[in-house]
Amino acid sequence: MNDFHFYSPTWFEFGKEAERKAGELVKKFGGSKVLIHYGGGSVVRSGLLDRVKASLEAAGVGYVELGGVKPNPRSGLVYEGIELCRKEKVDFVLAVGGGSTIDSSKAIAAGVVYEGDFWDFYSGKYIEKALPVGTVLTIAAAGSEGSPDSVITNENGMFKRGATGDAIRPRFSILNPALTQTLPPYQTACGITDIMAHLYERYLTNTPEVEVTDRLIEALLMTMIHEGPRVIENPNNYEARANIMWAGMMAHNNSCGVGRSQDWNSHNIEHELSALYDCAHGAGLAVTMPAVFTYVMNHDVMRFAQVAVRVWGCSMDFQHPEVTAKAGIEALRRFLISIGMPKSFAELGAKEEDIPKLVDVLCNGDGRPGSISGFVTLNEEDCANIYRLMV
Amino acid sequence: MNDFHFYSPTWFEFGKEAERKAGELVKKFGGSKVLIHYGGGSVVRSGLLDRVKASLEAAGVGYVELGGVKPNPRSGLVYEGIELCRKEKVDFVLAVGGGSTIDSSKAIAAGVVYEGDFWDFYSGKYIEKALPVGTVLTIAAAGSEGSPDSVITNENGMFKRGATGDAIRPRFSILNPALTQTLPPYQTACGITDIMAHLYERYLTNTPEVEVTDRLIEALLMTMIHEGPRVIENPNNYEARANIMWAGMMAHNNSCGVGRSQDWNSHNIEHELSALYDCAHGAGLAVTMPAVFTYVMNHDVMRFAQVAVRVWGCSMDFQHPEVTAKAGIEALRRFLISIGMPKSFAELGAKEEDIPKLVDVLCNGDGRPGSISGFVTLNEEDCANIYRLMV
Repeated sequence: MNDFHFYSPTWFEFGKEAERKAGELVKKFGGSKVLIHYGGGSVVRSGLLDRVKASLEAAGVGYVELGGVKPNPRSGLVYEGIELCRKEKVDFVLAVGGGSTIDSSKAIAAGVVYEGDFWDFYSGKYIEKALPVGTVLTIAAAGSEGSPDSVITNENGMFKRGATGDAIRPRFSILNPALTQTLPPYQTACGITDIMAHLYERYLTNTPEVEVTDRLIEALLMTMIHEGPRVIENPNNYEARANIMWAGMMAHNNSCGVGRSQDWNSHNIEHELSALYDCAHGAGLAVTMPAVFTYVMNHDVMRFAQVAVRVWGCSMDFQHPEVTAKAGIEALRRFLISIGMPKSFAELGAKEEDIPKLVDVLCNGDGRPGSISGFVTLNEEDCANIYRLMV
Repeated sequence: MNDFHFYSPTWFEFGKEAERKAGELVKKFGGSKVLIHYGGGSVVRSGLLDRVKASLEAAGVGYVELGGVKPNPRSGLVYEGIELCRKEKVDFVLAVGGGSTIDSSKAIAAGVVYEGDFWDFYSGKYIEKALPVGTVLTIAAAGSEGSPDSVITNENGMFKRGATGDAIRPRFSILNPALTQTLPPYQTACGITDIMAHLYERYLTNTPEVEVTDRLIEALLMTMIHEGPRVIENPNNYEARANIMWAGMMAHNNSCGVGRSQDWNSHNIEHELSALYDCAHGAGLAVTMPAVFTYVMNHDVMRFAQVAVRVWGCSMDFQHPEVTAKAGIEALRRFLISIGMPKSFAELGAKEEDIPKLVDVLCNGDGRPGSISGFVTLNEEDCANIYRLMV
């Protein structure tokens, strides 16, 4: 196991009507004037925004609002949020929404207290300081409610990049599974896929003998396989929603990924798709993961055989472990299709003729060295081959 | 899933030579004068205490020392520590040792800032305030390095009780698996047993449909079953030690136990044994758990069948699930014996004729209502029957 530090000082308030504690929690973590940041109409229509505002008012916390976050959140709104926070002397950013809203909130929180361009953080600068962030989560997916990460799409070129820093870990996150019961099946399935990707990206490691984190990741994957079809079948299943919500947080706060190298090539390869075609990140991952895993499988056949046997219940072919490894990838692909995810470029709205452009931005954009690295280092040719497997 | 809040703001510094960061971490979390609290000679002989002191000195942090913590830590030393901290104006308690030392440190930290008798907390009062605590862990076992709990033996009657409060969660914990390589096999096995007990106590729940935490607990149990025999075979196996150390923390910081009722009857029943006979807590648990599980199995046969199948690899007997459930308990018993743990009262130094006395303190001591509750409520007769199963 590699040396590491792990620090996850987020207060998780979990359960029915937990959003009513928003005001009390903002105050507990030192906020007196809040930016409420959110996306589109659903948090307004559902009455969630009103309940959050009532809770802030009851706690004597002031607020300003900024809506309009889109899936694959954009740099433009971040600049707007930073300006608004400075003007209004905001001291706390409260995200009400899903991963996109939380990521946009984190970017604003880091940008407000930074003199340079916030994009510096998304070009590799570690985030040392930020306004405190809180979240009221409305979809189990990105894990941003418990992570030190944020992903933003730069509108100047339409490419997605990530930033990180303990300073942007939420001080609190409110997780009410009932808020996710109104999500359409497609969005629910996208969330399930994203959570599973966070687990696979950690599972694909070059660090030997990390049994404890292997087992924890497998536990969360099996939870998703058990609960995923149950919420697709019955969106109102609170218990299944609750299991998925906690699994989604645990999948990405990194308690299950410490001490080991991780992959993140599937995320990187997908990011170019959702940046260019504005498809849902989870949908893009559903198409990307089986292609990447098929392409890199021979780098460590036994690792893919292990997940096939332990998670997917495949029989081990001791004479031909690669048969088992492939069966596990196929089981993942079939599972994702079964919950309604796309399986090809065409279903994402992606085009084969764009592959050279995708590969160029992926491998060379924003200062990258002509390749991406993770479980396996992939050069432009590798990435083109992988995109072609998705067509 | 039940509503809950989860808050684990402990900084974990994990890896080789991590103890050299003690000074820096005390400073980071606001300490300027430390009580170094420890047990016997091993931390002195190994040079660990000197390395910790050197680290404090390098960071410009002052300290006083209090050694002498015994396994099953006593109230007397806690009073002494509280007095010393007040006299020396200590503002941070640093535990260098195992669970006993950490629990004693937590008791001191809570007592220093409390006007009444610190034992109030061990009679049920929630700990709202305490000096900050840090730890340098020397055995993977109690999980106290990441928990809000502490267990102390009251010398006025020789009974053990627990206290809890977010205020006594360590601000940081230093986990260097190499420090555990010098432990004798018996102590190592006691630690493994304690960790497995923390997992079983959470597994035995009356809350339905908590798949995510079921799976996480199973993952950690399987890790212990895989790594346990490897460290008993080769105490210097760093990788196995590292896996056990992280599993031990995760088993007890409650991330895997949220949103569900828990048991803790095995711990309660054992506590009277280690309080009266001063046996190792883990050894006591090895004798207690199979007896308790056999006695309460019929309360939820399918739960015991589930752990038997998923964790111990037993075949499911669909016509007679109780056969599978029993096979799982038997597998646990055999595993504990295989790593060198005792299997009976006699091996613990416990005496059958003491059973009435054990039961009386267990069920009635310190204001208890004539029974203990958890997965199943156990009255005096039940507890006597369970102790008799261990003879």
